Amino acid sequence: MGEEEVSNKQVILKHYVSGYPKESDMEFKNTTIKLNVPEGSSNVVLLKNLYLSCDPYMRGRMKKIEGSYVESFTPGSPITGYGVAKVLESGDSNFQKDDLVWGMTGWEEYSIVTATQTLFKIHDKDVPLSYYTGILGMPGMTAYAGFYEVCSPRKGETVFVSAASGAVGQLVGQFAKILGCYVVGSAGTKEKVDLLKSKFGFDEAFNYKEEQDLDAALKRYFPDGIDIYFENVGGKMLDAVLVNMKLHGRIAVCGMISQYNLEQAEGVHNLFCLITKRIRMEGFIVTNYYHLYPKYLEMIIPQIKAGKVVYVEDVAEGLESAPSALVGLFSGRNIGKQVVVISRG
Amino acid sequence: MGEEEVSNKQVILKHYVSGYPKESDMEFKNTTIKLNVPEGSSNVVLLKNLYLSCDPYMRGRMKKIEGSYVESFTPGSPITGYGVAKVLESGDSNFQKDDLVWGMTGWEEYSIVTATQTLFKIHDKDVPLSYYTGILGMPGMTAYAGFYEVCSPRKGETVFVSAASGAVGQLVGQFAKILGCYVVGSAGTKEKVDLLKSKFGFDEAFNYKEEQDLDAALKRYFPDGIDIYFENVGGKMLDAVLVNMKLHGRIAVCGMISQYNLEQAEGVHNLFCLITKRIRMEGFIVTNYYHLYPKYLEMIIPQIKAGKVVYVEDVAEGLESAPSALVGLFSGRNIGKQVVVISRG
Repeated sequence: MGEEEVSNKQVILKHYVSGYPKESDMEFKNTTIKLNVPEGSSNVVLLKNLYLSCDPYMRGRMKKIEGSYVESFTPGSPITGYGVAKVLESGDSNFQKDDLVWGMTGWEEYSIVTATQTLFKIHDKDVPLSYYTGILGMPGMTAYAGFYEVCSPRKGETVFVSAASGAVGQLVGQFAKILGCYVVGSAGTKEKVDLLKSKFGFDEAFNYKEEQDLDAALKRYFPDGIDIYFENVGGKMLDAVLVNMKLHGRIAVCGMISQYNLEQAEGVHNLFCLITKRIRMEGFIVTNYYHLYPKYLEMIIPQIKAGKVVYVEDVAEGLESAPSALVGLFSGRNIGKQVVVISRG
Repeated sequence: MGEEEVSNKQVILKHYVSGYPKESDMEFKNTTIKLNVPEGSSNVVLLKNLYLSCDPYMRGRMKKIEGSYVESFTPGSPITGYGVAKVLESGDSNFQKDDLVWGMTGWEEYSIVTATQTLFKIHDKDVPLSYYTGILGMPGMTAYAGFYEVCSPRKGETVFVSAASGAVGQLVGQFAKILGCYVVGSAGTKEKVDLLKSKFGFDEAFNYKEEQDLDAALKRYFPDGIDIYFENVGGKMLDAVLVNMKLHGRIAVCGMISQYNLEQAEGVHNLFCLITKRIRMEGFIVTNYYHLYPKYLEMIIPQIKAGKVVYVEDVAEGLESAPSALVGLFSGRNIGKQVVVISRG
């Protein structure tokens, strides 16, 4: 590409965050970059970032953490996260110029990525490219692995999904319907609740913010109890679900977004139900299931093209909107998968 | 046996109990009984009770409960529980006079039992009969099923057992040692801690009441983390364990005795660790595993006779001592399995 330097705006984490993240915890930095891979380097690609993904797990990376499954962001450096990008130059024989990829990249216009083993090459371009931050990327695999591999679902079972209109929840609900389950979702606005029923085919849905008594709400929709709970929120909802589980129920613990901005997590009081109802509760991380990704694509791409599975995205325009989009996740401002478009090509 | 009536002292639950149970929540009642099965009845046996078992799950039955795996005791009626008994007369073709059995019976000298399908016939009498309330009965099967079926243990793994000197814990520790695991137990007195190491062969043991910081105590004994936690206590210990679990750890939830006398269970705050460490936490009830009982006996009886597995009982003499023995469980007064002898033959 030559020696010319081009501008490369970045989104920097200013400092570790406590409580709810704010846009002011991030700042923009105008840098420049030479559009080539460093000389003599291998396993390096130069990426032009197209779409960035805003995901709840990123909240954890905004604080100092040790011994978790992810590393902290580095204050003063660009945020990193999943994204879709185009290879501008490759020092890795597995990638070529103009390849499209998804995986870990930086919150900036161009990124030099050295962990190329974490990048997935995009083969099917006959779908919206942004889907590779969602239904065809990490959140899609999360829904797939969490539902099919962790929940051990069977036709006819009752399934409850919290944060059900989110990047993962909307898919879990659709997968459960395809299998022949009865599916109920919770979300935090009327608009999202409507979407669950009208767009994603949930049997029922409710706005948890309008329920005085979550236990009563769950009893209304699950008079005979819940076989499977796909846990995205934690805290009070988990407590209410535990007393409404059926014998031998399963809880796949995917996330606990209601807890991420608290200094101390809420206490969960009803764990004795694990014994009385013989519940299996299991946490999982999508990266343990990426070996199933080809199998997932084979299943999901035809479903998408046939309109049998749909996906709703909340698309923010431009890197400038990225901090606001990320912060919005934690107040539930997004409707569907939150994506940021940096460039459409 | 004839028409003669004999005296039949009973232990009655006076009323539902809140908070810690007291001896005064129970009372003795002098009744009489005819020593024969009601005429024309089938599936009924008349039992002479020999040993009664005091078990933590009985606390749950002292309150009004609905939809649990056990039923409430009936205030005004005798307490029921596991015991060892001799058949005096049988109206059930599966049992004969002088058979020894273990299973659900009453807290009284003689019991008419109609749920004969829940009684196990005792074949091997070349072991202490009281063992059929413990190592050869429900607690033994609990340890066996919980450890081998729920924990998925492997040689070389690190195992933590709470309430480790109790009826179940002492066996879990020994099973884990036999398999080649590193095993640490917690208990509530120095005497119990010594027993864990000197008698049951635990690698390490500690007195949880003397630890200011359970997290620090666990880090001392498990610098690289815990693969398997056999959960008997709940509450603060569970919270401390969660942050000390290894990746892909397993928690078998057998009981939560620290919580049984509280009006509301303590909150557990560290459940997010289920995700970060990809932990499977699973509750179980021994009755789902009784089909494995013959296999268990085949394994355990030779081990007992060879002295390779030992069992410590805390034996209270006489039905009069039963209320005190039961109440003592919840302050940890018993050392080993709490049994009450009604009659030795």
